[in-house]
Amino acid sequence: MTNRIAFLNGQFIKEENAFLHISDLAIQRGYGIFDYCRTSNDIPVYLDYHIDRFFRSAELMHLQLPIAKPEIISIIQQLISKNVIPNSGIRMLLTGGYSPDSYEVVRPNLVILQHPLHLRPAGLFEQGIKVITHEYVREFPGAKTINYSMGIWLQQKIKESNAVDVLYHQQGEVSEFPRSNFFIVTKDDVVATPKKNILQGITRKKIIELASNHFVVEERIVTLHDIRTAKEAFMTSTTKRILPIVQVDNAVIGNGQPGQIAALLDKILEKEESVLLQ
Amino acid sequence: MTNRIAFLNGQFIKEENAFLHISDLAIQRGYGIFDYCRTSNDIPVYLDYHIDRFFRSAELMHLQLPIAKPEIISIIQQLISKNVIPNSGIRMLLTGGYSPDSYEVVRPNLVILQHPLHLRPAGLFEQGIKVITHEYVREFPGAKTINYSMGIWLQQKIKESNAVDVLYHQQGEVSEFPRSNFFIVTKDDVVATPKKNILQGITRKKIIELASNHFVVEERIVTLHDIRTAKEAFMTSTTKRILPIVQVDNAVIGNGQPGQIAALLDKILEKEESVLLQ
Repeated sequence: MTNRIAFLNGQFIKEENAFLHISDLAIQRGYGIFDYCRTSNDIPVYLDYHIDRFFRSAELMHLQLPIAKPEIISIIQQLISKNVIPNSGIRMLLTGGYSPDSYEVVRPNLVILQHPLHLRPAGLFEQGIKVITHEYVREFPGAKTINYSMGIWLQQKIKESNAVDVLYHQQGEVSEFPRSNFFIVTKDDVVATPKKNILQGITRKKIIELASNHFVVEERIVTLHDIRTAKEAFMTSTTKRILPIVQVDNAVIGNGQPGQIAALLDKILEKEESVLLQ
Repeated sequence: MTNRIAFLNGQFIKEENAFLHISDLAIQRGYGIFDYCRTSNDIPVYLDYHIDRFFRSAELMHLQLPIAKPEIISIIQQLISKNVIPNSGIRMLLTGGYSPDSYEVVRPNLVILQHPLHLRPAGLFEQGIKVITHEYVREFPGAKTINYSMGIWLQQKIKESNAVDVLYHQQGEVSEFPRSNFFIVTKDDVVATPKKNILQGITRKKIIELASNHFVVEERIVTLHDIRTAKEAFMTSTTKRILPIVQVDNAVIGNGQPGQIAALLDKILEKEESVLLQ
């Protein structure tokens, strides 16, 4: 255990003492939502977007935040001061609460944690990754719920396939990874990303904005067939930023090496962040 | 809070003190399985079936039970002695454990709870219930996972529709309720129940066995159209036993009254249980 401080229902406590009673609806019924943002040199990156999405997820899942956005920002600032983890991940979690009948949503429990950040492993960008595919759509694609049963269950298959992650699709139309969004670059240098059945990723949103200054960007249907003819593919997330994909199932992408446009967009995103954080 | 005793990871403790650390994979990722059986006059009903299914669910979800079946039976017997709740519900819950990276399944946490039983409300059997339908298949139909996000999320729609529950279907082929199985009786007195995309309910299994002595019973595809032409419909579960359904969406079933075959099967099931419990 560590000396980290966590926020639980109005109090700052040691994370090792942060417990929920077993009547909580997350434990009983897997019911809850969360969001996750990153700090860089003690500054939360795109915090407003993450908090807005946290509130949107709560509303979609009929959960009532017990406090308002400015208070959440203040709590996060206090956690940053207390914990002194300059480069961290901040997890905001809202559960269905201590339900007397193990079914009805009641007053939610709010937890905010700060952990050291696990960024993409060194060398992985330069190497690119292999992913597998699986037919699945999250139950509430627009909400960041805590339900990762499928992603976690597929970990065995991912490892057996010597892959790193799994790309979901429905009848050949791809959507997202359990924790990342997906992009391809076509032979004509169009940057395309799935529009349907996805979580609106913050990094995805930034990449769409930044890429639009240099390329044609399309939010549209992307099929497994599109992937096989793509020049590049990559995933985006808060912790990975951009990670090139060089193989999807048995299909090698482009020349089997990370693409130049993925590398360019990663540099542009890194620069934008460094300006924001100055 | 109450004075009830719960079992948590090898210890009997007061239920009000039964907490899980927020790193548990149920809280972080909604990852866990459970089972639920009933006691009647301090005797667990069909306990072997429930424990077998609990172990099957664990295996399907790649979770390792920390103890063997006889030990679980012994713990349940001890809970029954300690709590003195003759007619109770016993909930066995196994979570993904305290995961260091909030994603990898580790050593599971095992919780066993005993609560007073909430059987079907008096008069509900005689009145029958209205249900609505919703297109959805549980992610792991064969496993009793803790993921009830859809069932809980639909509670608002159920209440707005003056209904009691929601029947899942996929492209018109019905499967199950969030916590119950489904049966119809055709105009030709065939008792039919969906075969695919369902949890193998213990009460469903008993009804199939007992009904087979009196009627043709079919496990097969049941469509929304079949329901509209059915003479009777009912749900089965551990807590409800049989509950007649008199309306599905806007379709009134039969003459809008609970059916005679549902009533007969309920009596036969009650009798079988009373013999078992002697």
